[in-house]
Amino acid sequence: MEMLGSWKRSHYCGDLTAKNVGSEVILMGWALRRRDHGGLVFIDLRDREGIAQIVFDPALNTEAHAVAESIRSEFVLAVKGTVIPRPEGTVNPGMKTGEVEIQVSECRLLNRSKPLPFMLDEFSEANENIRLKYRYLDLRRPQLQHNLILRSKVSQLTRSYLSENGFIELETPFLTKSTPEGARDFLVPSRINQGSFYALPQSPQIFKQILMISGFDRYFQVVRCFRDEDLRADRQPEFTQIDCEMSFIDREDIISMMEGLIARVFRETKGIDVPLPVQRITYAEAIRRFGVDNPDLRFGMELCDLTDLVKTSGFKVFADTAEKGGIIKGLNAKGCARFSRKEIDDLTDFVKIYGAKGLAYVKIENNQWHSPIAKFFTPDEIAAMNTAFNAEEGDLLFFVADKPKVVNDSLGKLRNHLASILKLTSKDDYRFVWVTDFPLLEWDEEEKRWAAVHHPFTAPMDEDLPFIESDPGRCRAKAYDLVLNGNEIGGGSIRIHQEQVQSLMFKLLGLSDESARSKFGFLLDALEFGTPPHGGIAFGMDRLIMLLTGSDSIRDVIAFPKTQKGTCMMSEAPSMVETKQLRELGIRLVEKLS
Amino acid sequence: MEMLGSWKRSHYCGDLTAKNVGSEVILMGWALRRRDHGGLVFIDLRDREGIAQIVFDPALNTEAHAVAESIRSEFVLAVKGTVIPRPEGTVNPGMKTGEVEIQVSECRLLNRSKPLPFMLDEFSEANENIRLKYRYLDLRRPQLQHNLILRSKVSQLTRSYLSENGFIELETPFLTKSTPEGARDFLVPSRINQGSFYALPQSPQIFKQILMISGFDRYFQVVRCFRDEDLRADRQPEFTQIDCEMSFIDREDIISMMEGLIARVFRETKGIDVPLPVQRITYAEAIRRFGVDNPDLRFGMELCDLTDLVKTSGFKVFADTAEKGGIIKGLNAKGCARFSRKEIDDLTDFVKIYGAKGLAYVKIENNQWHSPIAKFFTPDEIAAMNTAFNAEEGDLLFFVADKPKVVNDSLGKLRNHLASILKLTSKDDYRFVWVTDFPLLEWDEEEKRWAAVHHPFTAPMDEDLPFIESDPGRCRAKAYDLVLNGNEIGGGSIRIHQEQVQSLMFKLLGLSDESARSKFGFLLDALEFGTPPHGGIAFGMDRLIMLLTGSDSIRDVIAFPKTQKGTCMMSEAPSMVETKQLRELGIRLVEKLS
Repeated sequence: MEMLGSWKRSHYCGDLTAKNVGSEVILMGWALRRRDHGGLVFIDLRDREGIAQIVFDPALNTEAHAVAESIRSEFVLAVKGTVIPRPEGTVNPGMKTGEVEIQVSECRLLNRSKPLPFMLDEFSEANENIRLKYRYLDLRRPQLQHNLILRSKVSQLTRSYLSENGFIELETPFLTKSTPEGARDFLVPSRINQGSFYALPQSPQIFKQILMISGFDRYFQVVRCFRDEDLRADRQPEFTQIDCEMSFIDREDIISMMEGLIARVFRETKGIDVPLPVQRITYAEAIRRFGVDNPDLRFGMELCDLTDLVKTSGFKVFADTAEKGGIIKGLNAKGCARFSRKEIDDLTDFVKIYGAKGLAYVKIENNQWHSPIAKFFTPDEIAAMNTAFNAEEGDLLFFVADKPKVVNDSLGKLRNHLASILKLTSKDDYRFVWVTDFPLLEWDEEEKRWAAVHHPFTAPMDEDLPFIESDPGRCRAKAYDLVLNGNEIGGGSIRIHQEQVQSLMFKLLGLSDESARSKFGFLLDALEFGTPPHGGIAFGMDRLIMLLTGSDSIRDVIAFPKTQKGTCMMSEAPSMVETKQLRELGIRLVEKLS
Repeated sequence: MEMLGSWKRSHYCGDLTAKNVGSEVILMGWALRRRDHGGLVFIDLRDREGIAQIVFDPALNTEAHAVAESIRSEFVLAVKGTVIPRPEGTVNPGMKTGEVEIQVSECRLLNRSKPLPFMLDEFSEANENIRLKYRYLDLRRPQLQHNLILRSKVSQLTRSYLSENGFIELETPFLTKSTPEGARDFLVPSRINQGSFYALPQSPQIFKQILMISGFDRYFQVVRCFRDEDLRADRQPEFTQIDCEMSFIDREDIISMMEGLIARVFRETKGIDVPLPVQRITYAEAIRRFGVDNPDLRFGMELCDLTDLVKTSGFKVFADTAEKGGIIKGLNAKGCARFSRKEIDDLTDFVKIYGAKGLAYVKIENNQWHSPIAKFFTPDEIAAMNTAFNAEEGDLLFFVADKPKVVNDSLGKLRNHLASILKLTSKDDYRFVWVTDFPLLEWDEEEKRWAAVHHPFTAPMDEDLPFIESDPGRCRAKAYDLVLNGNEIGGGSIRIHQEQVQSLMFKLLGLSDESARSKFGFLLDALEFGTPPHGGIAFGMDRLIMLLTGSDSIRDVIAFPKTQKGTCMMSEAPSMVETKQLRELGIRLVEKLS
């Protein structure tokens, strides 16, 4: 192998254009392809910024030409040469550097490569586990390079926007205290304090509130967070959050500040002007119209509530459901009367995932209801429903009757599913909406207690505070989520800044005084020493970048992602450790029962 | 308590000057002090940016005045009022806002505070543990606010400088693989893969090299790292690093790029122009002249090597030491002949910490050597030593004779210690130096094997590679440290980019093939698939900010530091966890023998 010596790169490969013709350049990169043609050797040399065609002519330099003949895929080269126009007929207009090539005068072979386990341009065919094992090769693909470079750009834009607006980046600890409330903590055994454990933070929530109590006024951090949950697709055990908090503000201040951030990011990375202010919808309205609290507004197909129309009908299933306090809602799959029995059965199976016992349907064909349930309704009832659905020839109407949660969940998810089947959405269409006025608490059937919808530090709405004890379920929260194309990309709230309210909240959540003090005593103390009104928000960076880059998987926007089993295929983490390490920590493995 | 309502802050307290006279303003902050005087109530209102004096006049608003009378330290207020000039004779020129005060027209009391456990302006008297327990109060001190705001500024400057220079911020995992080489890893038990553990990264070293292999060309990250070591003062279990890596470069490229970064940071935060290029010194020269590899260049007092002068002398201790391969060095404490016996004894005790068996000394008084050892030397020997020391009337010469390491360690540390006693240095004097050409390996007496001086991925110098196997100790590394005022603030190296050299290195470090493969197999693999020449550096953020802010403790530049026992006094992490949590992880505590 040769050394770089005193050579310095003059240009990135991808930056050369006709303007550089005549220049002497030094390029460094990887051989993507080699072609031998008419005694000349052509190599596509690749670096981070793109590809340049370099040409080795034996008449110019025999030695370099000989080296070139030995070059295989992914060999690492430095070349010196002159930029020349490509001969007529060989210009490649599909390539940024396609008008020029580099006539190589000197070449240094810096490193070799073994044959790759898969070709870089045939990646889609390689199994993902192989690609994750050889992540360093997968990361050479232009798409992944683009994703991560854009991610870095979003980080910088975020930091500069927030800094310009008086936010201070403050680092919070990673070795924190375990307060298992919602998700499971990752634990870190302490060696110096044997028997004790640190927890990795699920978010810097309490610390950022403490920083407001300390008077830092505006805080941000782009920070890693951890949740030891069973992983679903698109969940990672570690994830990155853009985390913000402000003092002496209300909801409007945070919302408008964050709209500015989102607008800046979309303008600078995608050239898209997000129309401001972003549209808003209350939680109640979102559930009513879309069944979900993260509605995708790129298409219509809103849910209609038919309960009043059908509760007195002759269709017993609907009437009984209404009688028992349930609801009946439906949606109109425009123009889908052509769906086969099989397709409708698949959709029925789909809604069952969300607890629906069935999916009634009606095809509008020849201006009539075609449906097993048609016979149960009077012409007036049918006409009323047609109006509610805005039903037209060729439409397919779906109905679910059940408890409100089941109806909304299943139809809300069905709505998204149909949009995907019908290709109603485009990745390049970005529709934002703030969802506000969430409920503060929801009843946890399993634990027989109230649970926080956001987290226990979220403030109730001032006007709902009077019945927080008498009717907790009616209390709304000063919480807000930013939803983009059906994805929650950020969520936040105004926080409780009064100790009495915070204590009451812990009580409602079933925490005893002792338990609240042992877990959150320092926060309760801090609240008594002059806490300003404050609130904040956190954005999921991984999800945001996934949407910005149009990626299908969160793994495509993370340099070293983990599998659904939480393993890194490349480094083989997690792994067994030495007994000595465990002994020092004062822990041992529980024998597995076999 | 009152609500903020629709009030919006118009100014920070600390930003008001005579230019604002006549303006209606809304301020929000904490009551630092209240004074009642002639029917008026004066309150110093504090926010992040400073203090403004607000005045409550009962003639203007009886209600607000009544509220004001109830205000105690650290109550949280919002006030509306008019900026007016202070009456003649009451202007405070020592205060940024000292020319004005705010005549309050309306006041909202946003929150109360219990009496503080210590006064904010008498902090130096409060025990550090109390201050750490109430960290949210300690963080209200202007000095800590200043430190953390400056830290945020350095983060932003670093990111913008590196981004401008084509570096991409890439996030590396926190849940990584345990490869205990140098320091101890913090371990994280895996629940999904019971019996396996993640490790928190000691640095992203391998990942950043992998990113170079992936072709990202220029990487950076401001990143938390973890080391489970017994903590010394100024060590924290988690610490922040500015981490950089570049491809297709040599040492000079990294050094000049990083000098630009340091110069930018010092210019923008301190208004100081760091003279570039920064001076350089080889490791060998640093040890020879200063005894240490992190020399403080703010003062002289260099070590002199006297071995040749004294090896044939009549002073048996020196002659015998030289005979056995030891060395004799000394330093001249200019003008310190006045030191008492007690002071010299203390210095003798000091050098014993570093292994010296004694500290010989000579006072130059009346142009003569006054010393218990004077009698062992001939007048010629004394004259030669005087010349070597540049000894003058009133000087105090110190000598240590021992193995080279002991001599250099003890005199090097003594040199720093004397500078501190003699107040030879100022915190505002910033002297940088690159220390280069470190040894690649050092012999580990305990483990009976070679150990990497930097880390196992550091490349040997090309010219030393030929004797890496025959004489490993002679091999120098392509490593460099940036030293500021005696503190290593950054260190890096050109990395090994060839698989054979890396394998050889592991062998020299006593790693079997299997062990190397099981720990670093993925790196060895990656090196074979076209690895470019690359290198990098990491700066210790905490240390850098400590020096920039002139802080005495690293805890003063970290928002939520841990004690030397690794505990957070505020949150009481680490803590006991629930048995259920351990059961899920498949681990249990080892019973303590009592």
